[in-house]
Amino acid sequence: MSARPTFDHELEQLNTDLIKMGTLVEEAIENTITVFQTQDYDLAKTIVEHDRQINDMEKIIESRSLSLMLRQQPVAVDLRFVSTALKVVTDMERIGDQAADIAELLTHMDGSHIYTVIQHIPDMAKNTKQMVHDAIAAFVQLDLELAGRVKKQDDVVDDLFNRVKDEVIKILKTDGAPVDSGIDFLMIAKYLERIGDHAVNICEWLEFRLTGEINHTKLL
Amino acid sequence: MSARPTFDHELEQLNTDLIKMGTLVEEAIENTITVFQTQDYDLAKTIVEHDRQINDMEKIIESRSLSLMLRQQPVAVDLRFVSTALKVVTDMERIGDQAADIAELLTHMDGSHIYTVIQHIPDMAKNTKQMVHDAIAAFVQLDLELAGRVKKQDDVVDDLFNRVKDEVIKILKTDGAPVDSGIDFLMIAKYLERIGDHAVNICEWLEFRLTGEINHTKLL
Repeated sequence: MSARPTFDHELEQLNTDLIKMGTLVEEAIENTITVFQTQDYDLAKTIVEHDRQINDMEKIIESRSLSLMLRQQPVAVDLRFVSTALKVVTDMERIGDQAADIAELLTHMDGSHIYTVIQHIPDMAKNTKQMVHDAIAAFVQLDLELAGRVKKQDDVVDDLFNRVKDEVIKILKTDGAPVDSGIDFLMIAKYLERIGDHAVNICEWLEFRLTGEINHTKLL
Repeated sequence: MSARPTFDHELEQLNTDLIKMGTLVEEAIENTITVFQTQDYDLAKTIVEHDRQINDMEKIIESRSLSLMLRQQPVAVDLRFVSTALKVVTDMERIGDQAADIAELLTHMDGSHIYTVIQHIPDMAKNTKQMVHDAIAAFVQLDLELAGRVKKQDDVVDDLFNRVKDEVIKILKTDGAPVDSGIDFLMIAKYLERIGDHAVNICEWLEFRLTGEINHTKLL
């Protein structure tokens, strides 16, 4: 009996795990945005708890990828897939972490009304959520064109971060400004901006998985 | 002729590359601290330029690791080394990025006197630099005990970040506070805190390389 069916099965299992982890990460960022809008602090606590699940998934996928490399010694496109899995989970785990960091900040805040004062935070959140959704969809569906769009959207998010920063600075320059909340919102914007970066990384790993190149540099 | 000498040579080359990249990253963070102290903005520009070199090293090491996996199909301890190389370069590259981000902020700042006003920034910089140095030394010398110390030092850096945050908030609450510089210093502190996290990651990857476990979880 050939070892191939088992190998194929293991590759499929790895893909299923990645999809599962991707779903958890997407949920985390969606829930974070809901907390923004509803100030539902029980949900915020759930995000922090679910982050442990995401961390566990990272370890499981790393373990599976390494074990697969060790036993099956994949080559070419399969090796690219397995080594990509090993890298992409780090970005997904980071997105989960940062969603949890945002949730944690939100539970300690009283000035959630600033959400509307700082106009570009909702925009940032919406764009970042879309980037994460598209990056994971692109990775799972092997959609290079969608991945390209995510990379372009990152410029929008970076630009929005600078607008939020300017807005926070303007608010902090007024007398009796809510300094603590202002700082927390700036941190939240920074986390959103980083989440966008990780979505881009996921797209670059898809590029590598499909072409062996990242940003036109041949890796394998 | 056995393929082993070539394989050993390639593993050695990979190790040399990692040491070279580690040296560049350490230099980046050392130079960043010098800019803090001397306001030497030419040096700040050099850090940003050198970051490109660090990014190139990341691509070279990734490429070498993947190519080595593909051609030599390493097993056991060798596979752990090669797959660790693939992960650890991401953390090193991020440290370089964040040093460059700090340097960039410093070149645009006028309020460098705050360096002394915000008392805990120099402490943070000193501790973070030590963590990066020790993490890379531990990884290169396979020193698990040193790696353990780095992980403990991270609590100190996290604590210092919270102190800096409190100091910045206190300053921003005074009339006519230098809001822009305050915000920039908070960002710098955040970058230093993240650098500490990446140093910890490097130590965890050493743990995996030597034991197949991270935080007592068996990965391989």
